[in-house]
Order: sequence, then structure tokens, then C-alpha cells
Amino acid sequence: MTTTRSVLAAQATDYPRWFQDVIAKAELADNGPVRGTMVVRPYGYGIWELLQEAMNRKIKATGAENAYFPLLIPESYLQREAEHVEGFSPELAVVTHAGGKQLEEPAVIRPTSETMIGEYMGKWIQSYRDLPLLLNQWANAVRWELRPRLFLRTTEFLWQEGHTAHATFDDARAFATKILYDVYRDVMVNVLAIPVVVGRKTRRERFAGAINTMTLEAMTGDGKALQMGTAHELGQNFARAFDIDYLSSNGQRELAWTTSWGSTTRMVGGVIMVHGDDDGLRVPPAVAPVQVVVLAIKDETVAAARRIADDLEAAGLRVTVDDRTDQPFGRRAVNWELKGIPVRIELGPRDLAANAATVVRRLRSTKTAVNLADLTSTAVAAMDSDQAHLLEQATARQTARITTVSTVDDAVEAAAAGWASLPYDAVGETGEDRLATAGITVRCLQRPDGTLPASEDEDDLTAFVARSY
Amino acid sequence: MTTTRSVLAAQATDYPRWFQDVIAKAELADNGPVRGTMVVRPYGYGIWELLQEAMNRKIKATGAENAYFPLLIPESYLQREAEHVEGFSPELAVVTHAGGKQLEEPAVIRPTSETMIGEYMGKWIQSYRDLPLLLNQWANAVRWELRPRLFLRTTEFLWQEGHTAHATFDDARAFATKILYDVYRDVMVNVLAIPVVVGRKTRRERFAGAINTMTLEAMTGDGKALQMGTAHELGQNFARAFDIDYLSSNGQRELAWTTSWGSTTRMVGGVIMVHGDDDGLRVPPAVAPVQVVVLAIKDETVAAARRIADDLEAAGLRVTVDDRTDQPFGRRAVNWELKGIPVRIELGPRDLAANAATVVRRLRSTKTAVNLADLTSTAVAAMDSDQAHLLEQATARQTARITTVSTVDDAVEAAAAGWASLPYDAVGETGEDRLATAGITVRCLQRPDGTLPASEDEDDLTAFVARSY
Ligand SMILES: [Zn+2]
Ligand SMILES: [Zn+2]
Repeated sequence: MTTTRSVLAAQATDYPRWFQDVIAKAELADNGPVRGTMVVRPYGYGIWELLQEAMNRKIKATGAENAYFPLLIPESYLQREAEHVEGFSPELAVVTHAGGKQLEEPAVIRPTSETMIGEYMGKWIQSYRDLPLLLNQWANAVRWELRPRLFLRTTEFLWQEGHTAHATFDDARAFATKILYDVYRDVMVNVLAIPVVVGRKTRRERFAGAINTMTLEAMTGDGKALQMGTAHELGQNFARAFDIDYLSSNGQRELAWTTSWGSTTRMVGGVIMVHGDDDGLRVPPAVAPVQVVVLAIKDETVAAARRIADDLEAAGLRVTVDDRTDQPFGRRAVNWELKGIPVRIELGPRDLAANAATVVRRLRSTKTAVNLADLTSTAVAAMDSDQAHLLEQATARQTARITTVSTVDDAVEAAAAGWASLPYDAVGETGEDRLATAGITVRCLQRPDGTLPASEDEDDLTAFVARSY
Repeated sequence: MTTTRSVLAAQATDYPRWFQDVIAKAELADNGPVRGTMVVRPYGYGIWELLQEAMNRKIKATGAENAYFPLLIPESYLQREAEHVEGFSPELAVVTHAGGKQLEEPAVIRPTSETMIGEYMGKWIQSYRDLPLLLNQWANAVRWELRPRLFLRTTEFLWQEGHTAHATFDDARAFATKILYDVYRDVMVNVLAIPVVVGRKTRRERFAGAINTMTLEAMTGDGKALQMGTAHELGQNFARAFDIDYLSSNGQRELAWTTSWGSTTRMVGGVIMVHGDDDGLRVPPAVAPVQVVVLAIKDETVAAARRIADDLEAAGLRVTVDDRTDQPFGRRAVNWELKGIPVRIELGPRDLAANAATVVRRLRSTKTAVNLADLTSTAVAAMDSDQAHLLEQATARQTARITTVSTVDDAVEAAAAGWASLPYDAVGETGEDRLATAGITVRCLQRPDGTLPASEDEDDLTAFVARSY
């Protein structure tokens, strides 16, 4: 399938350009007028909506409830947690005028809502009976980015941010870990078909104000790392700053332990970068706004194409009919290829005469003639099979491109083409500085058995290092 | 059911205070820290989510697709449509600083997105084949309000805003009208159980930049009007300002015709004001986050309460179990009463011994003993029946409190206790001025048969006038 190669930069030649080209040609997004902002077009938003539905269902299954907190945060709120304000100050967008007047206190557009939600947790939580308090919101947030890039790092992004308060350190840690595995990892692997390495961030890479940040890292098509989501243990830092305390069952006043966790429209960037190829996007069936396109090649096959589409829809598939027979077939085929629709059914007069259609499996790069009677079962079977295929491909690449090394120098060399894993003892804080000068970061730390370290100071930890987006 | 009357102001005594009390006691929302902003708490957000799902499904059924446009609009965009900027300037929140620097051009937080989306329609639309372009977004918006009120008029609100472009005036009008009836009216009546009077706004009440605004008006418990949604014909005003033109099928360059339409978190305010009573909220089953609460009165009935809840859930109901047997029964009952849960099943040891439970129908104010074996069918039947009951009650009140008069003076008098309807010929622009001095507005105009006027200048139009929120 080389049809589309002329309209996109080749991945091997210019990967960042390929990424931009796919976003433009597949009509996923546009640049907004204010620098770094993004217009998410219907096709890109359709992927986000399906992802969001899956994520929302998993979040609710943990017992967290959705709510909505204001966009505008008084500047003074941020200043109550010293590390937090230091981390976010350079990225803030500030409202100084409103309703035709200068505001007495400037308001910042939320870069994240720990401070806002902390204030209300402080009001709502009185006793141990009010804990845990498990909140989530779907919202926009604004962080002024120096090097914006569509989906990956936009000045405004869409996300869910979860915020919880717990009676104990252990309960907070257990909940943040549950979000990491049962929500984030589950959706990324089983819905987005993206394998992720789950680990703990080093102190240097922690969220501003957290005592621990846990992360899920995906490998992009060019062997870099993409942080797909994070969950933070905030210790009692925000509880102290916002007076989130409770009366324990034995009558003591105690500070709560809080967590926060977020995942953003960046995940759509992950889908593009992990699954895309030189022909364009490849969308996992679970988040494909269109799973099957039935392309009528000529006017006389439009009616049959519609009947086929009805059958496919009745079988629960998301289907569209391409009946633009006044436009060249080749251009239409390329368009669907670029958009990465999993299954394309092409129906011409000769196919129809033979009681058959051509089935193009975009995610497999196959093209076969299929009897009309078998079309629905073929398409239905393709969904699970191709979803699994994408995950296998991405997993195989990830495995192949992680090189095990033992020194920082070797890690720098290996990270030119993929990730490196090495003993964290061989890195340390000075090693992190050296990696940084080569544009490389420690993406996360794992125990030898792949589980989460309880602290960065454990022995025998493995560090995954890579260039990143 | 007078249990809760002590915790709420009575509607008849102080309606605005009652409204605030319900919002606080039913834990629907809180004031945000920046003046006029709102925290939507999980219970209020749960109502919004169900409403949103229903509305989203109807919007998609019209063929409109969801997308997402940036929050921040360059100030210069608004200035391109003269009436639009004049209408919105006093309400804008302006970002002047970001990323630690003063911005070259200030950005406003969207008060609405005609200008932003107009800019992209201008880029995306080339030929008649690209029309109609039917877009919708779920988003937040900010308008600096002088007299904010939770849900009804908040500085930041959540909404959907639809924006469409069409080849002809007729097509634009037909689509805006379809949204008005098939989406908004349908959801308000059939999901929110709120009857609405659908009509055309007068010139004075039009959206800034529109050639026609159509509205749906509900009657609140105190006989005022609440605008529940609007759809605007924008003519070619925004098409001209944003160069939204297309090549017609006969090769001419033509300006498109655009529409916009929106409905907001204000609808939750409508649910409170239309259905609430002196005991608190009454939530229509279709948008009730909890449709049935099973209240275990004593420890020994908790297990049975859980089994009952399982059966109810298996029947498709949204159910919660109240097993807080360490708290007084009365306080728990009042809490569910305030929240307006349609059905409350109370299960005490004596009930259980008699193989029965007490079923309290909040929306009917009835209390009956029901056999355990009949609980599920009783609860399921209550949903449709009580949904219909709320709509009947609200419709009866609306009908009873619209007084037909023939002069502006009589309209002012009648509007002290409800709405008035009178011939629009008897009002005119001077009549509107006189009504305004009495705090009354023309809510909308209808033809004698209740349909939409094609213009304000038609003969024999009926004007509905009222005080409003
Ligand atoms: Zn406190
Ligand atoms: Zn043009």
C-alpha cells in the first residue's frame, strides 16, 4: 500500500514532519490562533470521545465521582504550596481584566486544580466518615508551552484530573496505584493498544508539590518516550496548605493524605505516534470513530453499499458509506487510508456481479475478495483480531528497541535509537545531569520484577532512559 | 412530608433563598472563589451528565459532529463583527499576561465561539460539497456577570454550543428550527419534564450579531420565566466577517449562511426551579443520578437492603444503598428527601419480618407498604409514571399562570404573579420600553397557532411577557 506515500513525509526521513502531515491530512487537528493552542477537528475529537468514554467508565468503577471546579483560580491559592507555585509560575496564563475593570486579585487559568480542589476538600471534609473523598473532573487546562506541538504539548489541553483525599498514607498510595494500573494501564493497553512501561519518577522529574510521581511511558515510532499519564502521591503537602483535616474515629484531628492523577489529549498523540505508518494513521478499532467504511466505486453500487452498511451497523459496528462517486476512486481510497479506518470494503460493479467485495484491512495491510454473505462476520472478526495485532506490533517494537546497558555512556549511545535500561545505581543524580546534557531523561524506575519501587532509594532499581516528547 | 421544612426557606416566603438553600442542602453546588464562579458538586454534576448524554445523542442524530475549539480568542476576532463585540465587550475576561510575559495581543476567554469557529469555517469550506458544515462543542465559557446566581447566571458556565454553515438562508433556518424542536424541546420536555414555550425573540432581545433568535422559555415555581436554550440565525453577518464563502455548483462564489445554538448548566437550575418544592429538590427519573435509594433502618436489614438493590440494578435502575445505620434514621430520610430521589425504599426489621418494605414516592408524596416480591416492578413502574407526573404538574401550573390580557398595563399587573400573553401589536417597541421599567421583558413571540413567526413584523403575533431569571 504505497498509494499515500507521496502526500506524507516518510517516517524514516523526517518523523516530526510525518507527525504534522498525518494530523493535517487525516483532519485530526489544526493550530489555534493563539500560539500553542489547538483546534481538535471532528475526526480527532471522535477518537478522544471514545477514549474518554472508556476512561470515564474505569474511573467511575474505582468509586470516584465526577464534579466540576472553576477554571479561574485566585493567584493567592497557588502560592500556598511553595513547590507547586515554583513549578507552575512560568507556565501560567493570567486574567488581569474582566467585566471592563482591572481585577483586585488576578486570576490564573487552571494549569491543574490541586489548589482549587484542595480548598473545597478542606471545607467538605470534617470527619473520617467523609474519607476517602474521590473526585474527578473532565476539563480544559492551560500551561504556556515554549515548544508547543499538536496533541503532545499544547497551551490548552483537554484532560481528566482526579483528586482524592484519604485518612492514611497507605490508603492514598493504594488508591494512586490502583488508578495507575486498573484505570490508566488498562485503558492504554486494552483500548489504545499501547504497551506502557509503568514506573516511579526520580525526584528530579516529580510533579511540583508531590512526594511521589508514578508514570506510564509509551514508545513512539521513532523510539522516543511519551509520558501517557501520571498519578501523584501528594503526601500531606496540600492538606497542610489547604487545611484538609478530619476528626479521626478516636477523636483526634488529623491531616488527610491526598493524591492527584491526570491523562490528557496527548494520548491521541500517542495513538498517532505508536500506530501510525508511512501511509498515515492506524486507529485501534476500540477508539475508531469509523471502524468500517463501505466505498461504493460506481453509482450502481451505492444501494448495495448502503445495505451492507446497514448489516454492519446492526452487528454493532461504527460504519460510514462513501458514496462520492463523482470523485476519483483513488483519492477516496487514499483519504480513508490516511485516516486509518480499520476495514475498508470496496464495492464495484464487477465485485457486485460476482457477489463479492474487496476487503482492505488497513491495520494488516491485506486486500482480499470476500463473499457478500461473509462481509459482516469478516468485519466483526477483524476488530478484535486487529486490535490485538496493533498491540503485538507495538509491544514487539518496544521490546526490540530497549537496550540493556550498564553505564551512563552506553545509555546515551543506546538512546540515540531507542530506550536504554540500566541499573539506577549507575545513574544517580550526577548521572541524571549528564543524561540531561544529551537531551535524555530517566523516564522511570522499576524493581527487578517490574513492580513499583516504594522509594527511589531502594537497591537494585532499573532505570529506563530515553529521549522524549 | 413536612420533615425537611425546617432546613429550607419556604418557597412562598422567600423563593430566591429557598433556591440557594436547596442548592446547598442537596449538595448540588458551591460558590467558587472568583466572584460569580461555581463548583458543581458530584450530585449536581450527575444530573448534568445525564442531561448532557441525552442532549448529545439528539445533537448527533441531526448529523452534527463534536469538535473542540480553543478557549482563548484573539481580541481582534471579536472586533470583526460590530454588533457582536458591542454586545459582549462588557462581559469579557481578558488574559493579558502568559508564560511570564505580557502578550502582544490580549486574548479573551471565549464568551461564545462564533468568531473562533467562523475563522475555521472560512478555512475549511471551499465548495458547496463542504456544506452544510454541522459542528458542536461541549465546553466552558466565561461571561462576567454583574448579578451572578448559581446555575442560572454564573461567570463560568458549562454548555454545548453548536455552529453550522449552510448554502442557503432556507437551509440555515430549517436547521436552527430543527435544533429548537427536535433537540432542545424534545430533551426539555421528555427528559427534564419541563414544558417550554417556544418562540421568536424581539429585536431588542436578540443575540448580538444574529438576524433572529429563537428561544425556549420555562416557567419557574414562582411564576417567572427562565430561558432554557436559544438558537440563532446569524444570516451572513459572520460569513462576511470571517470570509465563509463557497463555490456554488454553478461556479459562483457565494457567502454561506450560519447558525449557532446553545444550552447550558442553567438547565439544572431549571430542574430545581420547575420541580422543587418546600421539601427540596425533585429530580425527574430520566436525569436522576440515583433513582432509588434503599435505606436500611437497622444493621440487621443491611444485607436484605443490598439484595433488593441488586435486583433493582439488574432491572436497569440507578440505585444506592444507605447503610449508615449509626446515624439517625430521620436525618437520613430528610437527606434523601432534600436530594429529591424519586423512590426511597425503607427497610426496618418489622418490615422485613412482614416480607415488606415502605416505599416513599418523593415525586408523588406517597408512602405505602409494598411486598418484597413486588418492589422491583413497583420501582420500575414509578419511573415512567413519575416522570409523566412531573411534566403534568409543571404544565398545569404553566397553563394556570399565563393570563391573557390586551394592554401593556394589564400585562404589568398580571406579570406580578405569572406570565401574561397579549397581542404583540399592543406592545411594540415603546411597549417594550414600558415593560422594561417594570422589570418585565417580552420572552417570545408566537403565531396564533403557536408556531414560529418568520419575522417580528407579521400581524397577529402573541407576545409572552414576564419577569425572568
Ligand atoms: Zn479543617
Ligand atoms: Zn474564502
